[in-house]
Amino acid sequence: MKPQANRPLRLALAGFGTVGGGLVRVLQENGELIRQRTGRDIEVAKILVRDVHKARAVALPAGAVLTSNPADLTDDPTIDVLVELMGGIDAPHAIISRALDQGKHVVTANKALLAENGISLFQKAAEKGLILQYEASVAGCIPIIATLKESLAGNKIESLLGILNGTSNYILSEMSSNGLDFDTALRQAQELGFAEADPTLDIDGHDAAHKLVLLIRLAYGVEYPYTAMPIHGIRGMNKMDIEFAREFGYRIKLIAQVNEQAGRLEAGVFPTLVHHTFLMARVGGSYNAVRVKGNAVGSLFMHGRGAGDLPTASAVLGDLLAVARQVQPNNTGFVSQSFERAAILPPEEARSCYYVRVMVHDNPGVLRDIASAMAEEGISLAQIIQKPETGGAVPLVFMTHECPAKAMKNALARAVKAGLLRMPAVAYRVLA
Amino acid sequence: MKPQANRPLRLALAGFGTVGGGLVRVLQENGELIRQRTGRDIEVAKILVRDVHKARAVALPAGAVLTSNPADLTDDPTIDVLVELMGGIDAPHAIISRALDQGKHVVTANKALLAENGISLFQKAAEKGLILQYEASVAGCIPIIATLKESLAGNKIESLLGILNGTSNYILSEMSSNGLDFDTALRQAQELGFAEADPTLDIDGHDAAHKLVLLIRLAYGVEYPYTAMPIHGIRGMNKMDIEFAREFGYRIKLIAQVNEQAGRLEAGVFPTLVHHTFLMARVGGSYNAVRVKGNAVGSLFMHGRGAGDLPTASAVLGDLLAVARQVQPNNTGFVSQSFERAAILPPEEARSCYYVRVMVHDNPGVLRDIASAMAEEGISLAQIIQKPETGGAVPLVFMTHECPAKAMKNALARAVKAGLLRMPAVAYRVLA
Repeated sequence: MKPQANRPLRLALAGFGTVGGGLVRVLQENGELIRQRTGRDIEVAKILVRDVHKARAVALPAGAVLTSNPADLTDDPTIDVLVELMGGIDAPHAIISRALDQGKHVVTANKALLAENGISLFQKAAEKGLILQYEASVAGCIPIIATLKESLAGNKIESLLGILNGTSNYILSEMSSNGLDFDTALRQAQELGFAEADPTLDIDGHDAAHKLVLLIRLAYGVEYPYTAMPIHGIRGMNKMDIEFAREFGYRIKLIAQVNEQAGRLEAGVFPTLVHHTFLMARVGGSYNAVRVKGNAVGSLFMHGRGAGDLPTASAVLGDLLAVARQVQPNNTGFVSQSFERAAILPPEEARSCYYVRVMVHDNPGVLRDIASAMAEEGISLAQIIQKPETGGAVPLVFMTHECPAKAMKNALARAVKAGLLRMPAVAYRVLA
Repeated sequence: MKPQANRPLRLALAGFGTVGGGLVRVLQENGELIRQRTGRDIEVAKILVRDVHKARAVALPAGAVLTSNPADLTDDPTIDVLVELMGGIDAPHAIISRALDQGKHVVTANKALLAENGISLFQKAAEKGLILQYEASVAGCIPIIATLKESLAGNKIESLLGILNGTSNYILSEMSSNGLDFDTALRQAQELGFAEADPTLDIDGHDAAHKLVLLIRLAYGVEYPYTAMPIHGIRGMNKMDIEFAREFGYRIKLIAQVNEQAGRLEAGVFPTLVHHTFLMARVGGSYNAVRVKGNAVGSLFMHGRGAGDLPTASAVLGDLLAVARQVQPNNTGFVSQSFERAAILPPEEARSCYYVRVMVHDNPGVLRDIASAMAEEGISLAQIIQKPETGGAVPLVFMTHECPAKAMKNALARAVKAGLLRMPAVAYRVLA
């Protein structure tokens, strides 16, 4: 069953967009290096596209055939590995599932698929002893998946957090560095190709949440259902908050995070204040970063490009080299492929320090009343700034000591009920 | 030949110091996790120590036997893997070599051995199909070795640089943050256990150079002989330079670096100015960091603890889990184990921007004469600060545009010859 090691590895590519084109380019440019590293050539045999007649920016590799029929990839017995770079969920699931049935290894960058409907694919790969690699699905070129499965595999993971969505980080960075408002920064991101025409997945936090589901599996060996995850994006972020946060010494980042508390996981995606002295606060533009804390390793931080043709192709290529080297499959980092549902700390019990901005009437006693609403929920305030009136209301900005999410929610509800707020309050978590 | 997967992995530990003790603790604490990750237990069978009667801080694992005879480890047929944590070169070389002869896998943290006399061990491991892992030998818990061998294996590496010696970084950080002078910072590092009683290997750059030799093998598949490497440490660093560098917006770090220039490697260990906006400038205390640039990945940065019992044990444990999982040996990242000598750019041709401090007489025309010595070697100055007289001489500090090392050396020799300098000049590279 073991093929000759120096027979070329034949791959079928499903999807020939930005990343697929980047992969084809890198395979050509680095062909000699790949031979030195694996003893084999990697050949692109088939490429699945919607329209075989469309003009392509990247030249077709020698010997490669375009097709619009998935079975040409999955059912070709000369093909060793399927590389899935299509996006979407149902179509790639069918193709990957069929490829595994046909005994092919799989490399994919599809976080949405793996997060929402991935377990059955891992189980099928395990039954058949096939490699299913997906390094490019989380944090672009950062090798966080390999690191969790392998290098840190002996660590109990205490917490894991990261900036996992480059589009959101680009928007927040532009708002912070160049004073743009949200809509302008989003439009700029779209013009530069950092954001999709429909940016929902990115700016509403869903993409980061998909990635977090995968990282939780790798770190804890459990399933945190995507549908159970608290997800808050950055849509409509007010640049006022970015400026006020700065005055306190913080940057606002879209942080995907999980930590373990007495056997239960506290996880979610939240706009979060990160102190400027943290490396995580220094992640600019469309870069991604991940910080892992483990009971032996301490704190490990990794930073790299989160998207783009070549950085993503780099991660896909690392996976392909593993296939070419015929590594032992280690797809999830755990022996058992039956991922139990995570024990989840109810999100309202999650404790955090908060940044809060309320817009209040310029009346005597308002500060007292707000502070009293907080105090009645047991929330103590660490710092307060009252800002000059803007648009007919006075911004009152404060940082709290740690409190449960529920206390914050209740305190703000009290403030609403007492008629103290002229606009909905903003409350963001602060990274400890 | 393939052993039962769920038979315990039996290890022999050579050396029971800080890291060995940390490893034993983590194996105990994380035993259940290791079973979930590998399907196996890891048992410590034998521990090699100099004195079997000495009291130990860490309790001996159940079933483990202390011995002072290396053959008890290497020649015990029930042992699967030797973990070498002794330090030194000749003794561990003999033990590892014998262990490989006896068909045992090896995990080591010994950078000096692998850099100065490692190739024959890799060749032996390859001939016998054995695993020789050494993640803990470079940058503590940062998985840079796995990343170069695997995740980035499809990239042509353009440059690689890092802070690879925690002791030096601790000293520089203390000098920079707390204004200590070199001797005080070194003494403090020794008192806190960050520096050895004989700190030569650390502060003179040899330890970082050993690690760089290993990283060059992994990145380029060639041998850059340790003896050919330019190595400049931080001994006697003047805190004046740390302060002046700060005024220009830089931190001084001990940087080990390699980059490829038209097929030749330019490498070495140098005190280097790093602009404060770089993540590398933010590496504090005894932390380590590595930055790799590849032709697909772009720039990848990793940061973590460079030393300490548990962080180093974490890296050793990652290697042990690979052994427990019976991975295909991939010890060097290349198929061929015959590492050709690197094509080396002569160090005097290496181009860099420089920070230069000269101590001059407070005479009219001195600045003109220094500038003229530089100009005659084709060096143009980017910024100049003249500082107030101190200790009978005037510090003249400048940043240059890029020039070859040889030009800088010659220009400073001209200044000496012209009697311009009251003390030897200081010239440090600036990270581009």
